[in-house]
Amino acid sequence: MRDRDRKPKFRPGGKGPDRGHESGRRPPWRGREGSADDAVILYGWHTVAAALANPRRRIRKLLLTENAARRLAEDHIETRVTPEIVRPNLIDQRLGPDAVHQGLLAEADPLPSPDIETLPQEGIVLVLDQITDPHNVGAIMRSAAAFAVKAIVTTARHSPEATGVLAKSASGALELVPLVTVQNLARALAEMNDRGFMTVGLDSQGSKNLGAVTLRQPLALVLGAEGKGLRQLTRETCSVVARLDMPGEIKSLNVSNAAVLALYIGASQLGLMG
Amino acid sequence: MRDRDRKPKFRPGGKGPDRGHESGRRPPWRGREGSADDAVILYGWHTVAAALANPRRRIRKLLLTENAARRLAEDHIETRVTPEIVRPNLIDQRLGPDAVHQGLLAEADPLPSPDIETLPQEGIVLVLDQITDPHNVGAIMRSAAAFAVKAIVTTARHSPEATGVLAKSASGALELVPLVTVQNLARALAEMNDRGFMTVGLDSQGSKNLGAVTLRQPLALVLGAEGKGLRQLTRETCSVVARLDMPGEIKSLNVSNAAVLALYIGASQLGLMG
Repeated sequence: MRDRDRKPKFRPGGKGPDRGHESGRRPPWRGREGSADDAVILYGWHTVAAALANPRRRIRKLLLTENAARRLAEDHIETRVTPEIVRPNLIDQRLGPDAVHQGLLAEADPLPSPDIETLPQEGIVLVLDQITDPHNVGAIMRSAAAFAVKAIVTTARHSPEATGVLAKSASGALELVPLVTVQNLARALAEMNDRGFMTVGLDSQGSKNLGAVTLRQPLALVLGAEGKGLRQLTRETCSVVARLDMPGEIKSLNVSNAAVLALYIGASQLGLMG
Repeated sequence: MRDRDRKPKFRPGGKGPDRGHESGRRPPWRGREGSADDAVILYGWHTVAAALANPRRRIRKLLLTENAARRLAEDHIETRVTPEIVRPNLIDQRLGPDAVHQGLLAEADPLPSPDIETLPQEGIVLVLDQITDPHNVGAIMRSAAAFAVKAIVTTARHSPEATGVLAKSASGALELVPLVTVQNLARALAEMNDRGFMTVGLDSQGSKNLGAVTLRQPLALVLGAEGKGLRQLTRETCSVVARLDMPGEIKSLNVSNAAVLALYIGASQLGLMG
């Protein structure tokens, strides 16, 4: 359950105009509505195609290469705004050389963060306790969408913003899984307990193996950052703290790998694998 | 089964003296023995501590901060070579600002790559078909060590080197899981078939769900790069091609997440979970 990297990395691709804004750590949906500095940067085929398919996502600006525009047309995906047709290196310049944008870059409004009271009383919810690496959080969102998770609950602080690298790693999942942002995670977990959730924290020091815990719906699986793990108050507020037993010499996984394993075990036991 | 990023990223932390060598894509163990340009760069607590604990790993040089040196002494970990005690920013300068080195940096010899004939005739082996992202390959190695995988087979070309970011993401697993490097993957798979392996390729177009395939030892789980998937010849050489069924709207996982799920399903079915 170790986060790949404890230093937060907020840059979408190493450099670009949103660098200053991203390093400010303020979630974009807390920004002034519609102001330039809360724009969400979306790039890459799956990420932009999913955003274009999401009526709740307001697209402000769309940069496409000729090839990407043709591919969208072939797949009958509406662009919703008039795209600017640009050369690939213009998008490279915006995102930095490491970003695999596949010829698509959108600037969009952030999606609204639903309230914790709106969580459905069924299925699985993931709760992330200050996981800072945007690649990991993005991969977790993608797995969450693959396992039909109802929502992801994160803290407003010490979480990466739902933009750039996170959005790319999420591969379209940002448009599918609601992201509930809370100020105080322990209070949110207590509220979930009150609302009938079984809240299961994952920690190498857990008293039981997750596979041996009798799970029930609605289920919240709670993951901590690598290295730090679950914060003490988070751990104390969970109904159960469980570990993931594995037969090898290394006893902890990359946090996104731990998340997908917990989702598989949870969904299998609850009969949610379809 | 999509690799996070199709552009290979070979830099250990964004910049540093080994940048030129890493961008050359030649696996370091193919370099001249003991020459300066095949040095493996290891940083971070788990990665360096595991290397120091591995008698087969020759350490050439060890840079430690005072704190890291104290922590190694407290944990009774021998440094084997006389460390240079340095300030953290000197290691920052070597690795770039994004590398979380925790005060430890080692230059070491690459480990030898065993021959495919040496693979044990039991348990699970992972085979990676041109997965290029070093974070993903590192996370896969870490999960492999967690699931007591016997070896990882990769291609000499189109695979990241076992150094830098990969070694950091592997979190010590480089010292635990033998890395078998082959020139021709289809030929290696054919040889594994001949030697009695059940070779199972993972692909979204697979004919069966992995959980529904009757697996047996020795088992090879074969994973392709995101986007590209398994190459045609790889797919044709596998005894079975299986998919990972999931209930949600997104049908593909980050490749390291797919790997850990396949390992869990395989190890559970084979009774290897301990």
